Amino acid sequence: MSTKTNAGNFFEDFRIGQVLAHATPRTVTEGDIALYTALYGSRFAVNSSATFAMDIGLEDAPLDDLLAFHIAFGKTVPDVSLNAVANLGYADGRFGEPVLAGDTLTTTSTVIGLKENSNGKTGVVYVRSTGVNQRGEMVVDYVRWVMVNKRDTSKPAPEPVVPDLPAVVDASALRVPVGLSLEDYDTVLAGSPYLWDDYEIGEKIDHVDGMTIEEAEHMMATRLYQNTAKVHFNQFEQAKGRFGKRLIYGGHIISLARALSFNGLANAFKIVAINAGSHCNPTFSGDTIHAWTEVLDKVEFSERQDLGALRLRTVATKDLPCADFPYKDADGKYLPNVVLDFDYTVLMPRRVG
Amino acid sequence: MSTKTNAGNFFEDFRIGQVLAHATPRTVTEGDIALYTALYGSRFAVNSSATFAMDIGLEDAPLDDLLAFHIAFGKTVPDVSLNAVANLGYADGRFGEPVLAGDTLTTTSTVIGLKENSNGKTGVVYVRSTGVNQRGEMVVDYVRWVMVNKRDTSKPAPEPVVPDLPAVVDASALRVPVGLSLEDYDTVLAGSPYLWDDYEIGEKIDHVDGMTIEEAEHMMATRLYQNTAKVHFNQFEQAKGRFGKRLIYGGHIISLARALSFNGLANAFKIVAINAGSHCNPTFSGDTIHAWTEVLDKVEFSERQDLGALRLRTVATKDLPCADFPYKDADGKYLPNVVLDFDYTVLMPRRVG
Amino acid sequence: MSTKTNAGNFFEDFRIGQVLAHATPRTVTEGDIALYTALYGSRFAVNSSATFAMDIGLEDAPLDDLLAFHIAFGKTVPDVSLNAVANLGYADGRFGEPVLAGDTLTTTSTVIGLKENSNGKTGVVYVRSTGVNQRGEMVVDYVRWVMVNKRDTSKPAPEPVVPDLPAVVDASALRVPVGLSLEDYDTVLAGSPYLWDDYEIGEKIDHVDGMTIEEAEHMMATRLYQNTAKVHFNQFEQAKGRFGKRLIYGGHIISLARALSFNGLANAFKIVAINAGSHCNPTFSGDTIHAWTEVLDKVEFSERQDLGALRLRTVATKDLPCADFPYKDADGKYLPNVVLDFDYTVLMPRRVG
Repeated sequence: MSTKTNAGNFFEDFRIGQVLAHATPRTVTEGDIALYTALYGSRFAVNSSATFAMDIGLEDAPLDDLLAFHIAFGKTVPDVSLNAVANLGYADGRFGEPVLAGDTLTTTSTVIGLKENSNGKTGVVYVRSTGVNQRGEMVVDYVRWVMVNKRDTSKPAPEPVVPDLPAVVDASALRVPVGLSLEDYDTVLAGSPYLWDDYEIGEKIDHVDGMTIEEAEHMMATRLYQNTAKVHFNQFEQAKGRFGKRLIYGGHIISLARALSFNGLANAFKIVAINAGSHCNPTFSGDTIHAWTEVLDKVEFSERQDLGALRLRTVATKDLPCADFPYKDADGKYLPNVVLDFDYTVLMPRRVG
Repeated sequence: MSTKTNAGNFFEDFRIGQVLAHATPRTVTEGDIALYTALYGSRFAVNSSATFAMDIGLEDAPLDDLLAFHIAFGKTVPDVSLNAVANLGYADGRFGEPVLAGDTLTTTSTVIGLKENSNGKTGVVYVRSTGVNQRGEMVVDYVRWVMVNKRDTSKPAPEPVVPDLPAVVDASALRVPVGLSLEDYDTVLAGSPYLWDDYEIGEKIDHVDGMTIEEAEHMMATRLYQNTAKVHFNQFEQAKGRFGKRLIYGGHIISLARALSFNGLANAFKIVAINAGSHCNPTFSGDTIHAWTEVLDKVEFSERQDLGALRLRTVATKDLPCADFPYKDADGKYLPNVVLDFDYTVLMPRRVG
Repeated sequence: MSTKTNAGNFFEDFRIGQVLAHATPRTVTEGDIALYTALYGSRFAVNSSATFAMDIGLEDAPLDDLLAFHIAFGKTVPDVSLNAVANLGYADGRFGEPVLAGDTLTTTSTVIGLKENSNGKTGVVYVRSTGVNQRGEMVVDYVRWVMVNKRDTSKPAPEPVVPDLPAVVDASALRVPVGLSLEDYDTVLAGSPYLWDDYEIGEKIDHVDGMTIEEAEHMMATRLYQNTAKVHFNQFEQAKGRFGKRLIYGGHIISLARALSFNGLANAFKIVAINAGSHCNPTFSGDTIHAWTEVLDKVEFSERQDLGALRLRTVATKDLPCADFPYKDADGKYLPNVVLDFDYTVLMPRRVG
């Protein structure tokens, strides 16, 4: 029998400092952009229109930041999470050079933490993954940690190493696109009159609309990202499992929530950081996703007065509208219908006085 | 609670002469064209092939006219029909400059009619919507009227204004693409030997084939057009409603019917007018669409003998083949399985003697 | 009633030597490439990345060979197989000029065999179909044979002609892309260290993963190829038929199997020949496809030592994992869950000593 197939790495295959060069460089195109629109219905003007993008000093309409993230993420799956039990969290995610149609993305990961669980069957692997374009410029860089099975439970546990990760990406690390000029930013075309100045810390926004997930859409999305995680695609196998059905890729929910958030955050035209993220409960085909957002913080940039950043928490639910901002119970546990807790930072134009 | 979300306009928010500049300009690409092919399977050679298009004097393969229509239409939904009860009709639709990959479309609407219904709860809003490209050239211009809820039923009714709309777009308003030259039009590659000369007024064509609708395809299509009407996407909410399921966007049926009409009208290479249109009955996922067409009129152009126009009525049905041309009952009411009555005008080459 | 619709050809409409020029030339784009990725999740680096393709001497990332095949094939359906009962086989398939985004494909077929069945109701039609690009260069050329209904069973049988077809495409007919240079072929980016030298005749590879089919994906794929075969799209009609449901296009299974085969054959970067193919059992939405491959032969090229060819048999199953390499029963009959037996030849880099 051939041993030429990739069985993925198990917990004991990872070493601190190990560098994983992931396969399948990916040239992104206008085809990917159109599919992303069809899959999520996102309406942010800067990603939808070359003319709008050029009017604010960009070279062309950049890819949605999350599309770039999903593609960079997908490459890591065969080497990092093929034998993962759970995707535990994200931290220190920063977006760099905007991605344009024609760019080619490649991802490399470095193992920065390892901690075997007390059951001796699984361990947590921390990796920093960096997606770069064809010029080697960073387009996205983030840490994630996953619980991975051991191949051989008799193998001794490694020395535990847990990286020190920031709770929030520092303002100094937020990258404003080169050439960005907001003098001609058109709020009518952008879809909302509300700018950075109009949002208050603690303000909560119900994004109102709901979007039901279908298997076909989710699988097309996840294959577009060349994400090979088995739980998303194989109903024959999943039918025998705990849920009896295919699991929805957590990133699909992030993109749905971001698209829904347009209604209330239309001028949040660019994601610059992912501070933290948690897939709180599993999502399945047929679930309807709603979302709400809380403004966690407001960031000013000393070097420019035309824009600021908002740190946001967007929470997504399944089959539960968000007028009451559902989140956690009295014990601090996520409510059963809460599926995403996403802490990120966006850029937004400021009112120029 | 935040009031930054768009609740849409209610009947009393509209005023005669009001201009609505719609958000989210949209650059159309080869990605949109490929998705449109995947969604409907259209086979008209001029939209499918750059070489065919250039052989008849065009710069490149233009977008399917209905793809341009749906994108221009989608922009109007957040401002015009978010609180609509029903999409009542279309009139005076004209297609202008062909849309090519790379063009950016923006839509503006003007309120041209208002009439409160006698129940005091709803009213009819008439808007003329104009889609333009990045050079400001008109690509599609049409009137539609929708029944919209009042926010406050105690508000007095406005002076009723009902616009005077043409039953059919006049021949003088039909726009032949600049540079079109049919000397090298190849009927073999186009898929049919039948030209304008071969069609007779009153002739009926059963387009034979049927196409079943799936939720995933319909939602991808409607999101591609950035159409945000809630009834298409939210099964959690729709489950409680009158039908218990998501409604299919009427424009999706128009595109399916047009794609099916290739079999019998393969040389109807361009839509130049939408004279009238009615979504006669609701359509749902799982329905199979068939279509038939009647030739309503033939139009000659005095200034050129190489092409003419056909005014067509294409009728689409759900779960009912069209060999018997199903349409209306003895009382003039649409049969329950008839879902679309679409009156439009196409260009077709003439036999050159 | 109009007779302008295409009823397709029946058995008695075909004549030996008849040339069928198929309609609807098709310009392929980056949109088609993105959709193909979304539909199958293929990860071969040469089709995924312009930089990888250029690093091995190609002009740009070529379309997946099977995407080009499906588009060329789709054009033949209205003329060859609209009244087909079964698609019986393929032979002598060769891939020529790589297809790049922007190319326009057209297909022509020649009838090379005819044999009426003893029941007098059907006959077998053999056609050689050739897809060419806008410069007239062959991109794919293959023979297929289909069982087609007779319109009039009283018509006499034609003189039987059965073409002499090769069991395997000769090595001399395998076309290596012009300019291909494998000095900088990067096995890390390609996703596997195993090269031509590492595979043995008789070696079997279980591709491990499974992919469940959804109606929406399959219909989008088949419409993307402008394949109009009725059995794939019309549930209203199929509900009355033998299976009660829509049939999956056999080519969809070939593409799924090829995408799954990446896990074990990541360096099989190009298909150069289709030696034979059989759709052994019908496939339906909801089926999960697995695949395994046997190496049937290894081919060396006398004129270059940097690459070789592998003749492969990839077998796909429905709802049956392939660890045991399921194929035929003791009587040589395909097992009921085997849906594809595909014999083809791929190029793979050789280890340079």
